[in-house]
Amino acid sequence: MPPIGGWPRADVVAVVDVLRATTTIAALLAHGALSVTAVADERAARERARSEGSLLAGEVGGLPPPGFDLGNSPAAVGAASVRGRDVVLFTTNGTRALTQAAAGGATVIAAAAVNLGRCAAKLRDADAVIIACAGEQRGTAFALEDFAAAALLARALEPSPGARVLGDGARLARAIEDPLGLIGRSGHAETLRQLGLESDIAVATAIDRFPVVPVVVASGDGWARLVSS
Amino acid sequence: MPPIGGWPRADVVAVVDVLRATTTIAALLAHGALSVTAVADERAARERARSEGSLLAGEVGGLPPPGFDLGNSPAAVGAASVRGRDVVLFTTNGTRALTQAAAGGATVIAAAAVNLGRCAAKLRDADAVIIACAGEQRGTAFALEDFAAAALLARALEPSPGARVLGDGARLARAIEDPLGLIGRSGHAETLRQLGLESDIAVATAIDRFPVVPVVVASGDGWARLVSS
Repeated sequence: MPPIGGWPRADVVAVVDVLRATTTIAALLAHGALSVTAVADERAARERARSEGSLLAGEVGGLPPPGFDLGNSPAAVGAASVRGRDVVLFTTNGTRALTQAAAGGATVIAAAAVNLGRCAAKLRDADAVIIACAGEQRGTAFALEDFAAAALLARALEPSPGARVLGDGARLARAIEDPLGLIGRSGHAETLRQLGLESDIAVATAIDRFPVVPVVVASGDGWARLVSS
Repeated sequence: MPPIGGWPRADVVAVVDVLRATTTIAALLAHGALSVTAVADERAARERARSEGSLLAGEVGGLPPPGFDLGNSPAAVGAASVRGRDVVLFTTNGTRALTQAAAGGATVIAAAAVNLGRCAAKLRDADAVIIACAGEQRGTAFALEDFAAAALLARALEPSPGARVLGDGARLARAIEDPLGLIGRSGHAETLRQLGLESDIAVATAIDRFPVVPVVVASGDGWARLVSS
């Protein structure tokens, strides 16, 4: 992503990286972080955190690189460590997806299962929405967990008066059984279990556990700052 | 496609463009065409057909361009017109997918619902297989009908002794209801109906109607020749 020809027109783009970046962003803001700045490049994230005095969070290969204050683990986010702090986040796919979406001009939110209801309410107010899956390999490969979470969100929108499901991805979302259970059956969930991070899967599948809507309020080349709206 | 880093290693790649290129290729060979040469570029297809004395088939925007002998309509393939002939085929997405797959070195077959059982038997003999969806927009956008047909094929492989489903796409294939019915609920099926081509959808969803396995036997830059194996 973005697709060839750029993003289709939309008023709101909901970026989904349910394992784990958008889940972690909701957890950070729900625990009192002032802001989360998603940064697409690891070195740029380190420099921004140092210059701003922010906490540095994220992962490479699923684990926090040396010198990071926090990983990308929603289960490990505690109020004591993040309340009142700004956080800079770098992850392998999710932060790139957010910064690319932010470059498109629409309102961009970070959506996950933990904030499903609030995100759905936000999308219902818009005329045209895109649910964008972060995926794998810089957005070029399919990630089952993101599709499953996007399907939950698409289904949550369907009762809206006048809602029209147009894209083939949304049509498929209607046809799958147990989207929430699919998150834990993805290849990436297997990798997290092998890393001992199964508690993150439990948190990531807890519907409405962190009822905040992280929304991009400022962005530039390779970064996007989100606050709770 | 191909994905970043090229195709993963596989012994056989099954390319799926169920609406309609791979369905049409199976129909042409089942009706007695000697070969079908998929060509990625319209002008190159015209030149090849002229120089070889082949029939020229295909579509742009769903319909045969001026000067083409045949469209890309499996329902319109009749024995009288193609028996004993070589056919050159150009279509918007499917022929490009086939020629790109052929460049990867694996055995490449054209798979669809009309030849599902025979294709599954071919894949069961291989150690590692890829089912590649042609998709839309040169393979960068998701097409529900191709995913649905790929899901039928992936499910047909699962009873094999030792079969392991590893990719997230194949995991999702297990979780959808009525994959055959999804083909007709895709956006592209809607477009075909608007063009008056609903009979092609009926043919494309007729399981095992054309029990041939089109396999690539020669290829070069932007072309791949298939015969019935």
